[in-house]
Amino acid sequence: MSSRQVPLRPILLVEDNPMDLDLTLRAFSKRNFSNEIIVARDGEEALAWLPRWAAGEPMPAVVLLDINLPRASGLEVLKAFREHPQARHVPVVVLTSSRDDRDLKAAYDLGVNSYIEKPVSFNKFIEVAGHIELYWCVFNERPY
Amino acid sequence: MSSRQVPLRPILLVEDNPMDLDLTLRAFSKRNFSNEIIVARDGEEALAWLPRWAAGEPMPAVVLLDINLPRASGLEVLKAFREHPQARHVPVVVLTSSRDDRDLKAAYDLGVNSYIEKPVSFNKFIEVAGHIELYWCVFNERPY
Repeated sequence: MSSRQVPLRPILLVEDNPMDLDLTLRAFSKRNFSNEIIVARDGEEALAWLPRWAAGEPMPAVVLLDINLPRASGLEVLKAFREHPQARHVPVVVLTSSRDDRDLKAAYDLGVNSYIEKPVSFNKFIEVAGHIELYWCVFNERPY
Repeated sequence: MSSRQVPLRPILLVEDNPMDLDLTLRAFSKRNFSNEIIVARDGEEALAWLPRWAAGEPMPAVVLLDINLPRASGLEVLKAFREHPQARHVPVVVLTSSRDDRDLKAAYDLGVNSYIEKPVSFNKFIEVAGHIELYWCVFNERPY
């Protein structure tokens, strides 16, 4: 809604489950948004973006973060982002199949912006992923 | 999507502008959600909820917070919520006509969950308010 949304910023999708990854990408393509989708397939791939953002590569509009990831967990990634001078304000939405209340509390303790449980039904997942993209890429403003 | 959404939690709307308040309430009524809408008309009315939540009254699903408020600013309210043992995890969405980059940065520094500029057009405002309600009352999970 303001000049801050131009040019479109990428979305960083941190997801190791190939089926969930495929579903999310299909939901996004249905929306016909033109944000680039960057995929990180484990926690370390996500953390590898920190030095790139520090070097000036465009920060994402939002990070969609699974919790249960190989190599570094979603909570470790969230903690590292919040402690990083460039990434500390990046909106992070946990998108997970974990119903674990400890994960939910830990994510809020670490400063997550939002926590969404992956819907089990295919159609509902497509609907929710589309809303997430619209909300964070179009409506939400970021201080960068 | 989980048992955490039952019973429906209220929405706390902190807004002093009667026209914006009316618009937001109309947008919510269009969605036909049954969440109770609690209105605080200045910063001190919002802060007065802290002891009530501490005493066990139900915390809101989301706080929609204007920045420019009489008696205590939206940023003061946000700071007090984040420092309060019960309210520190309550999702706070700044919903403001301020395009001031200092407000935007200060809100993120204080741990706002999301920052949305009020659309100028009536129809767009109705649309955005409806999305905000859907996102935070239905999709987002909270640790309480």
